[in-house]
Amino acid sequence: MNMTLTEAFNNTAYPVGGHGKRNIQVLREALQDVDNNLDSDMYGKGNVIEDFQSEMAEYLGKESAVFFPSGTMAQQIALRIWCDEKGYKQVAYHPLCHLEIHEEDGLKEMHHIEPVLLADQNRLITLEDVQSLQVDISCLLLELPQREIGGQLPDFEELEAISAYCHNKGIKLHLDGARLFEITPYYKKTAAEICALFDSVYVSFYKGIGGIAGAILAGDTEFTTKSKVWKRRHGGDLISLYPYVISSDYYFKQRIDKMVQYYEEAKELAGLYNKCTHTSTLPKEPVSNMFHVHFDMPKEQLEPILLSIYEATSIGLIPTLRDNGETGCYCEVSIGDRYAGVPKEKLKTAFQMLAEKLAN
Amino acid sequence: MNMTLTEAFNNTAYPVGGHGKRNIQVLREALQDVDNNLDSDMYGKGNVIEDFQSEMAEYLGKESAVFFPSGTMAQQIALRIWCDEKGYKQVAYHPLCHLEIHEEDGLKEMHHIEPVLLADQNRLITLEDVQSLQVDISCLLLELPQREIGGQLPDFEELEAISAYCHNKGIKLHLDGARLFEITPYYKKTAAEICALFDSVYVSFYKGIGGIAGAILAGDTEFTTKSKVWKRRHGGDLISLYPYVISSDYYFKQRIDKMVQYYEEAKELAGLYNKCTHTSTLPKEPVSNMFHVHFDMPKEQLEPILLSIYEATSIGLIPTLRDNGETGCYCEVSIGDRYAGVPKEKLKTAFQMLAEKLAN
Repeated sequence: MNMTLTEAFNNTAYPVGGHGKRNIQVLREALQDVDNNLDSDMYGKGNVIEDFQSEMAEYLGKESAVFFPSGTMAQQIALRIWCDEKGYKQVAYHPLCHLEIHEEDGLKEMHHIEPVLLADQNRLITLEDVQSLQVDISCLLLELPQREIGGQLPDFEELEAISAYCHNKGIKLHLDGARLFEITPYYKKTAAEICALFDSVYVSFYKGIGGIAGAILAGDTEFTTKSKVWKRRHGGDLISLYPYVISSDYYFKQRIDKMVQYYEEAKELAGLYNKCTHTSTLPKEPVSNMFHVHFDMPKEQLEPILLSIYEATSIGLIPTLRDNGETGCYCEVSIGDRYAGVPKEKLKTAFQMLAEKLAN
Repeated sequence: MNMTLTEAFNNTAYPVGGHGKRNIQVLREALQDVDNNLDSDMYGKGNVIEDFQSEMAEYLGKESAVFFPSGTMAQQIALRIWCDEKGYKQVAYHPLCHLEIHEEDGLKEMHHIEPVLLADQNRLITLEDVQSLQVDISCLLLELPQREIGGQLPDFEELEAISAYCHNKGIKLHLDGARLFEITPYYKKTAAEICALFDSVYVSFYKGIGGIAGAILAGDTEFTTKSKVWKRRHGGDLISLYPYVISSDYYFKQRIDKMVQYYEEAKELAGLYNKCTHTSTLPKEPVSNMFHVHFDMPKEQLEPILLSIYEATSIGLIPTLRDNGETGCYCEVSIGDRYAGVPKEKLKTAFQMLAEKLAN
């Protein structure tokens, strides 16, 4: 059933989420204006990688930055460096942290670091959670926005208080900024202003930026120098990372100024969902380009409804549904370039149909 | 001084080694005939990666194959899997094994595997070395050819004997086949015939094949299934590996049939070096596309000689020299596409000049 929904979504003229298809054209476009004679990077050296690293260090307000093939690699390494420095093999993070649920326990299996899970999995980490820690930790990881609960964010004041507390207690603070660019409009802060609260920062180039793959890990030079040694140990110090570097750079420049637009569009789309019965978004009003849509209806019941709407309107609302408990289902929505190209009248019709079908 | 030699080499009309410059054109050429609509792989799934993995599994004569961003990652993982299976956290390899000298001790730091160094660093591992092991090991790693000593190879009969011994003793045998494709002409064996002696095999796509980056790890399905879990733990299960997959596939098809040519050319070139005094190649007669050239002369004395030859003939013989003890120096030569385009008369002149200058 799920494949059918995904196929139908992909076959609509107007899929609502994301930037577009992840196909070879994405790479070809990024290369289109690059000089054929531009030399490859070589094991982390060379202009193509070093220039981008410098640019991102400046953008994030950090002394130094290192390009990694993946965030999985970058973040394990960040936590390992802080654990080695502080001497405790414990860190704290949210129960739905990427390292806890998507990385096959690499942090535990390779680095022997034990996480303390803070907060209930359905809510954000608070200052009080951090203050209540009963064990010594080397590092606290905060994910902004907290993706698995719809991309929620704490108030900036709470963030500042957590940062100050950690600083006073000698706890390193690491930012999982997989979607950092996407939250600057809500906070009305620059990326550097947000990053200033953290000792180390990871950002990704294939979420809101829409690149092919790749990540940056930033911090002070002592930290990033160590991270390069670990990058080699992990097998991430490739002879050539330029396909990812060039595409990250290209799409960063294409889309960094569109984050406000995506954020406004996400609020608009969430508003349309929230007008339907049996339907609610999390957060109620998005704080980035993403949110979750929850339906108090089994996905087996909802899927035929969605399929009929896609068929009738050529609007693809949702690519895939996940079960949520016994009787509900949900999906993640991320706004990208596609949304602006969706005819508003057709979208309105699709939501009218959805509202009617859900009300029956 | 070294930079000067490298710059001069790169500025010659006819650099003798390698395939060509490592620049963006290498990627663009690999993409030229690919349909823009070809979908990206997604975290190891999708036709673009699965088809290539199947193709390589068949070529290597193994049940299954997995594409990795790097050999560093693939090989640590192979050894980890065998250690977990056999129960000993020890493996054996050559003192100049890639894992020992180029990976910042990732195997030890992340996997807590201790290597036993077999053989003197200046010679190949023999059956006797393996038979003389005093400790239990889970796996023996053999590198064919042994790059750091000029790319030497054992006789195939010795390989067969080592393989049979390991099989009888329950020791897993892993092939570091970074340059496996390049040795098939010497052994007069298919890659699959060589791989049949090993439980697991790694091959690279940016040495003789001349791709951008990437590696394949092959073995039985139980082994490769485990390797995918470790690939994720290492941070190598990227959302998109297609830039490396497509270029590996493209250059594999371009060059796999040229390995005989490179091997013959390497023998020819080594013969030219061996006619000069103060000069010898290792091995005397190459057994692949690579060899080392040793000069019993300090590099400070040799570099001006080479520079004058590059200037006079527009032939670039050697890109960089490394010290070898107090009074000697050496370099690695790898034959690729460029050699066939070097005018034979000019090459002859360059070697005449070298012979004369070295004789004085």
